[in-house]
Amino acid sequence: MMPRNTAYDVRASCRAGEWSAPTPGLAPGFVQANLVIVPRDLAFDFLLFCQRNPKPCPLLDVTEAGDPVPRGIASDADLRTDLPRYRIFRDGTLIDEPTDICKYWRDDLVSFLIGCSFTFENALLASSIPIRHLEMGCNVPMYVTNIECQPAGVFRGPLVVSMRPMKPPQVIEATKICSRFPRAHGVPVHFGDPAAIGIQDILKPDFGDAVEIKPGEHPVFWACGVTPQAAIMRAKPPFVITHQPGCMFICDLTDRDLTDSA
Amino acid sequence: MMPRNTAYDVRASCRAGEWSAPTPGLAPGFVQANLVIVPRDLAFDFLLFCQRNPKPCPLLDVTEAGDPVPRGIASDADLRTDLPRYRIFRDGTLIDEPTDICKYWRDDLVSFLIGCSFTFENALLASSIPIRHLEMGCNVPMYVTNIECQPAGVFRGPLVVSMRPMKPPQVIEATKICSRFPRAHGVPVHFGDPAAIGIQDILKPDFGDAVEIKPGEHPVFWACGVTPQAAIMRAKPPFVITHQPGCMFICDLTDRDLTDSA
Repeated sequence: MMPRNTAYDVRASCRAGEWSAPTPGLAPGFVQANLVIVPRDLAFDFLLFCQRNPKPCPLLDVTEAGDPVPRGIASDADLRTDLPRYRIFRDGTLIDEPTDICKYWRDDLVSFLIGCSFTFENALLASSIPIRHLEMGCNVPMYVTNIECQPAGVFRGPLVVSMRPMKPPQVIEATKICSRFPRAHGVPVHFGDPAAIGIQDILKPDFGDAVEIKPGEHPVFWACGVTPQAAIMRAKPPFVITHQPGCMFICDLTDRDLTDSA
Repeated sequence: MMPRNTAYDVRASCRAGEWSAPTPGLAPGFVQANLVIVPRDLAFDFLLFCQRNPKPCPLLDVTEAGDPVPRGIASDADLRTDLPRYRIFRDGTLIDEPTDICKYWRDDLVSFLIGCSFTFENALLASSIPIRHLEMGCNVPMYVTNIECQPAGVFRGPLVVSMRPMKPPQVIEATKICSRFPRAHGVPVHFGDPAAIGIQDILKPDFGDAVEIKPGEHPVFWACGVTPQAAIMRAKPPFVITHQPGCMFICDLTDRDLTDSA
């Protein structure tokens, strides 16, 4: 059953076991977030990694150890049940993809909620800037670059970017719009020559699906929320939980809440 | 001897023991920063406190445990020697005010550099908005409010604000300018009635000096970098080091670097 269209409704449907599929298009106007959960002894390093790399890892909320409630963004939510599906990793190996994480919960777990490109894509669509992967009905193409993130403790890794092709006036307008969303990856990191940031073949993304680039369009690259997961996978911590890609946490924040940064 | 006028020069003068006085007016255009140093086992809680309270605690850099170099903002600096004067606290009690902290240094210390209102004061002066405490040659008045910060782990406490009196058109212009500086406390948190935020007597600041409020002027209140120190003092951690108030760390960042947030 398709959940009704507020953040609360989607979370309630997930909690009741009625929804375990991806969340794009659900609860339009509400902010969707990436989830990373690590044990307390890794939490400082991971928080520092996010603080040093705010474009790929814009923090929306961080919980106290053992607290499953993201009090800053959804005070009645429970991160153990309110996402459609999760991934459980031990020593870097995926061991389970459950629809709730109650049996894996521990008193030392710290949860990180990280902003997502759905927020700025909504703003681009509202300004009549087309989004190719939405037109094509596929996932956004994502690429590992040769740009190294600022390391922090045990966490280090390359910047991962997402790509959307546009004509020059759209690149300019999209940059202006995204400058208002520092907590949803902000302005692009590059446009044009993919090789300049270490991408060998634009038609072979490392994650997601390839999209058409039409004559007169430039590929435009944004910092991507897959970056922290790449750093975590490289560090192979003993235990970590994330959301299933595409199955995001939906916050009570609205897209407009993310524009106020001062 | 007055240090010459770049960030590097001021740090070198401090390191050589030639300068141990306050830093306002030194190295104009370079960003000055508050310093808080805590042991690794408190670092996650303090980083989380800053992340949850970005207006009073805008982070400019956080070091790895044991690393005295703030690599993100001054890669040739040494936080053990490059400030004019420090304060050492044990169990919440001030035990020393040395000009370097080499003998107190430990491999588990994490350093936090936090933005400072000098940055936006420079921008206000550049737009011909007068700053009363600078006109009067005294310290800015600061007040403890009845607004509670978002707690994080062992850290909790009230928001501390600084105050600058202005006429309405200057309040509007100052708000516009400060909206560009989220990492230097950003826009004001209040103006007008001091009692509305729990300030009983505007002529008796809790820190700093009282300043004149002229007819037609409103007191305008900004989140203040004393806030994290108030939270630390309330938590009474076993060991903490801060800068001596007014004796700031001077970064290689310039004021303009702090305007880019997206």
